[in-house]
Amino acid sequence: MAPIEGIFVPNIVPYDAQGRVNEDELRRIIRWLVAKGVTGFYPNGSMGEFIRLSYEERKRVLKIVVEAAAGKPILAGAAEPNVDLVLEMCRYCADLGCRAVSITGPYYYKLTQESIEQYFREVAAKSPIDIVVYNIPVFANEISVPVLKRLALDCPRIVGTKDTSKDMCRFQQTLMEIKPQRPDFSVLIGWEELLCTAMFMGADGGTLSSGGVAPEVVMKLYNEARAGWWQEARQTQFKLLELFSLMVGAPNFPEGFRQGYELRGFKVGHARFPLSDREEGLLAEMRAKLACVVVDCGFVEAAGECHRPGEGGRQVPVNRADIENLVREVMGKMLVQRK
Amino acid sequence: MAPIEGIFVPNIVPYDAQGRVNEDELRRIIRWLVAKGVTGFYPNGSMGEFIRLSYEERKRVLKIVVEAAAGKPILAGAAEPNVDLVLEMCRYCADLGCRAVSITGPYYYKLTQESIEQYFREVAAKSPIDIVVYNIPVFANEISVPVLKRLALDCPRIVGTKDTSKDMCRFQQTLMEIKPQRPDFSVLIGWEELLCTAMFMGADGGTLSSGGVAPEVVMKLYNEARAGWWQEARQTQFKLLELFSLMVGAPNFPEGFRQGYELRGFKVGHARFPLSDREEGLLAEMRAKLACVVVDCGFVEAAGECHRPGEGGRQVPVNRADIENLVREVMGKMLVQRK
Amino acid sequence: MAPIEGIFVPNIVPYDAQGRVNEDELRRIIRWLVAKGVTGFYPNGSMGEFIRLSYEERKRVLKIVVEAAAGKPILAGAAEPNVDLVLEMCRYCADLGCRAVSITGPYYYKLTQESIEQYFREVAAKSPIDIVVYNIPVFANEISVPVLKRLALDCPRIVGTKDTSKDMCRFQQTLMEIKPQRPDFSVLIGWEELLCTAMFMGADGGTLSSGGVAPEVVMKLYNEARAGWWQEARQTQFKLLELFSLMVGAPNFPEGFRQGYELRGFKVGHARFPLSDREEGLLAEMRAKLACVVVDCGFVEAAGECHRPGEGGRQVPVNRADIENLVREVMGKMLVQRK
Amino acid sequence: MAPIEGIFVPNIVPYDAQGRVNEDELRRIIRWLVAKGVTGFYPNGSMGEFIRLSYEERKRVLKIVVEAAAGKPILAGAAEPNVDLVLEMCRYCADLGCRAVSITGPYYYKLTQESIEQYFREVAAKSPIDIVVYNIPVFANEISVPVLKRLALDCPRIVGTKDTSKDMCRFQQTLMEIKPQRPDFSVLIGWEELLCTAMFMGADGGTLSSGGVAPEVVMKLYNEARAGWWQEARQTQFKLLELFSLMVGAPNFPEGFRQGYELRGFKVGHARFPLSDREEGLLAEMRAKLACVVVDCGFVEAAGECHRPGEGGRQVPVNRADIENLVREVMGKMLVQRK
Repeated sequence: MAPIEGIFVPNIVPYDAQGRVNEDELRRIIRWLVAKGVTGFYPNGSMGEFIRLSYEERKRVLKIVVEAAAGKPILAGAAEPNVDLVLEMCRYCADLGCRAVSITGPYYYKLTQESIEQYFREVAAKSPIDIVVYNIPVFANEISVPVLKRLALDCPRIVGTKDTSKDMCRFQQTLMEIKPQRPDFSVLIGWEELLCTAMFMGADGGTLSSGGVAPEVVMKLYNEARAGWWQEARQTQFKLLELFSLMVGAPNFPEGFRQGYELRGFKVGHARFPLSDREEGLLAEMRAKLACVVVDCGFVEAAGECHRPGEGGRQVPVNRADIENLVREVMGKMLVQRK
Repeated sequence: MAPIEGIFVPNIVPYDAQGRVNEDELRRIIRWLVAKGVTGFYPNGSMGEFIRLSYEERKRVLKIVVEAAAGKPILAGAAEPNVDLVLEMCRYCADLGCRAVSITGPYYYKLTQESIEQYFREVAAKSPIDIVVYNIPVFANEISVPVLKRLALDCPRIVGTKDTSKDMCRFQQTLMEIKPQRPDFSVLIGWEELLCTAMFMGADGGTLSSGGVAPEVVMKLYNEARAGWWQEARQTQFKLLELFSLMVGAPNFPEGFRQGYELRGFKVGHARFPLSDREEGLLAEMRAKLACVVVDCGFVEAAGECHRPGEGGRQVPVNRADIENLVREVMGKMLVQRK
Repeated sequence: MAPIEGIFVPNIVPYDAQGRVNEDELRRIIRWLVAKGVTGFYPNGSMGEFIRLSYEERKRVLKIVVEAAAGKPILAGAAEPNVDLVLEMCRYCADLGCRAVSITGPYYYKLTQESIEQYFREVAAKSPIDIVVYNIPVFANEISVPVLKRLALDCPRIVGTKDTSKDMCRFQQTLMEIKPQRPDFSVLIGWEELLCTAMFMGADGGTLSSGGVAPEVVMKLYNEARAGWWQEARQTQFKLLELFSLMVGAPNFPEGFRQGYELRGFKVGHARFPLSDREEGLLAEMRAKLACVVVDCGFVEAAGECHRPGEGGRQVPVNRADIENLVREVMGKMLVQRK
Repeated sequence: MAPIEGIFVPNIVPYDAQGRVNEDELRRIIRWLVAKGVTGFYPNGSMGEFIRLSYEERKRVLKIVVEAAAGKPILAGAAEPNVDLVLEMCRYCADLGCRAVSITGPYYYKLTQESIEQYFREVAAKSPIDIVVYNIPVFANEISVPVLKRLALDCPRIVGTKDTSKDMCRFQQTLMEIKPQRPDFSVLIGWEELLCTAMFMGADGGTLSSGGVAPEVVMKLYNEARAGWWQEARQTQFKLLELFSLMVGAPNFPEGFRQGYELRGFKVGHARFPLSDREEGLLAEMRAKLACVVVDCGFVEAAGECHRPGEGGRQVPVNRADIENLVREVMGKMLVQRK
């Protein structure tokens, strides 16, 4: 099979008024993203609140995503809580025709690197489907680069890694330590602030939450980077930063990203964790700001919620354009000697 | 209902050769502990690998513990992954007649203190059973003292806290901030190195893993502390330290404690997470040392596994007693001015 | 020489309007504390901003403290930045007749435990004066318990440790690991929230910043603990908590403690580090609250700055007494079974 | 004055057998680096053990570097322990004709961002020389991006920043937040693993310890990056990684880099902090490996210490070349679509 590359969208799970998975809206989101040209999907990840779904719900979500994805490759979260359940989920994913599963380091308990290595070896030995090792130290046990390297060199089923550590020394080491000996091993970035940088270093793509809210921007950046159009890529990265920093800075991830989906026209409801009244207010404020950034990206769906201060709600692209010009000018100077 | 006090044992889950819950052995452990006089039980906690069981297994384990406990109070772990499932488990526990549920801060995601407060408020408003708020920051989001205090003062269903932070400034603040305004609020310690100290500060008891391996020692310490016999309590604490430090220092908690149960004559099998070969060796080494410490505590079950170096396997209590005498002498000096 | 025990006050350095060391006021503070009965002094520690003084200023401060202390034992900070300078300061302290020097782990660089051990061994081999190893991990490299134990058993010059880690597992291990083999080794606590607890565990005393602001309270607590009057000691500890938490919670340690000295009637000026305007305001607010707590401790010097809300500035000890009674009642209940 | 850009070498301080600064060898190093074409020098930084020198030694080192640098710009560490001493050092640097001073966040105490901002504002208001704000959170208080931005926009004397956090999200934010509004503000990287990446992002250069050991490699990388020759730059970065990781991984930074200087033919002696015997051994092992990497970079000075296993000490460039070819091939594939 071909190496995994491109942009995989870690989709959220929309809920209905009763808090159940809103299957129709999930299908609508997936189909919309297919039309936007994203590479594939990443269900049952942190963005999809896998840990707050029941086991049955996770299976159901996965099935819906696969069906709606119309053949696009699926990288399915399978970080179940013990080896037997992980393998059961691996088999389920294989049966559905997923491209691979993604497995985080174990969470809750703090485990030794040795045990973590042993865990991945056992899963890899028995899995009927390719595996991506997912390093997300903020939520789950880190998987060290030496462990990852041994897994990559010893286990054919382990075909790549996704990294959300934001540690670019680690990212570079991963590329340098593994790629020369296993060139088909995929290295994906999981943090969109660093997509351009990661592509520059040699990444194969990413799984990026913003890709579900602004697939146009993320795919543009990915394609510019693939083409080696670094100056353009950096400017697109800059645009993405604004979007991302608002969504990721909102209270209780992944609540902020859910607001982004709403602004693109989907009914997704709240995440499965309560907010205080004050945080509801903060979220509403963020949403109002985000609406204008979304509009500035050219997505008019959000225009109704973008009210610029002192303008009686009128849009002021002129002002915005001025800022963009200034930024372009400065960035141009920064890049001038580097073609 | 009376405040929660005493020693609750966070029991492990024994597995059979196929990795299934060994129900008979679980019953046998519980009955043995009942006979040893422990106050109650704490199923589905970290020691019981709640997170590595399926939802159905957790329910089954709880049912068995309740039945075998012969009326002893049950503090049941109910840290399910979303509010609906937490409440479902609360109802299940209430129906079984548990004394209370214990709920950790949410795990995996990093959440704000505000959201965590809101989460406990929602659960407390709807729960049919009393709740103990469990702070275990090494595994799950911390619950700050100000949040805990507001919950204690506002929510009648929240009747106590268990603390495994090892932070005795926090423990003292918890007692000082809450007890004067709500004297029936129970404050339990979750780390046996600090049981004597916590009791001295005013704790109502603890949930202590060693209590399942050496209930005689833990209950002795608890009773000495309750009686204000501090000099004796400190010496018992000292004895407990040796036991505990070996078990907690073994690779991949709670594997070390499981070895302790084996040495007391139970067949519990490995935890539900693999060890490397080297770690299996470390565990065997630890078990050999633990066997001698268990024997020194007076529990002859472990004698067959205690082989002292240079003694052809013969027991040498003399040597041990010398050490104890020295310790007693020094501790006596340390305490002499303090009655 | 006798083991080090008792309460050593880590004094601040008062500055005049030009920012120079105010030598007269420093003498006045030391003499006042001598009269209050503190055991000894601890100049050139964190409280004394040793790192913000020049080398010459540190020597000068030390000389003044020794002269004003009228024979009370001096434990002098000597955490100079390299071995040669540490030894030079050790000689200086020995010449002045100090009881011992206190040396923190190295700061700034992160060093291995092995190098840190080697560092203390070299200093201990050449020092003409006894050494207390000072563990303060929030500011300087931690010194692990195994390293400390080896130093204690191998180096006669190393006669004690001061611990400001707030980690009572560590504190207990230090006592348990070292005292049985070297009973004259002094173990001092450096965090007043835990003074009562540390004494209960077997500490030999402490170096406590509050001791400079409220020597009456700290010495009362120390003496109660020495006498084994635990119920009284805990109530005194409770009183100390209020004082301490206000001072330690103020912006930019040790600024809060300096306000405490001012309220006791000394002119100490600001610490040698700027505050923002907003922080100056926070500090003033804290000082106003602290004044009332100081008055409630019975120190009338602060009465002029204590204005209770809604009382037109009149003092309301009645209200305060009610709270104290309630606290006493609840604490009595907490302690009833423990004599 | 022109913005600060290029590669500034944070030089070490050589010591003689008595542990005194070896002034002749320091001059020899500086002159050699001038001849190698480095942009400028960075004395009295972490590499130069500023904190282990006396105040007088720091001044002396600086004077020697300035004199030997033959007009190359000097960025002088001035992280003295209080505002008055910082300003005294600023004046000294100005008198010597340095280009700017570099000031870290305060160390030892943990301070609020507000106080840190106030500290830099006070220094900037009174300094007679330009200031670079140095963020090195592993050793000193972090300076947040919002604080840095306000300082950059408000204080003309603050002309740049050096960042050694390894956090490339932060680095990118620094560029994006400050450059558009103050294009002449210099942003330097302080970690050579990320030099290529930082230049790609828009950095103005770096202060890189490896630049003192392998100025040829670091200047090659810098010049390739400046020219926009990214494929070459990445390969040079790869070469630098080997050198750097050995030196930075040795016990007790900056000991490893000192070995590098020795291999280039300088007599620098040990750093001013002891090593254990075992660590001395580790260092010798590292030095033997480093010698071969240095030889592979084309620097024959180290040939005498490079003994390849199984080769009787003979050099085997063939084997090495094979590896390089493989790496080049793989990297070529990684980069093929990106020109």
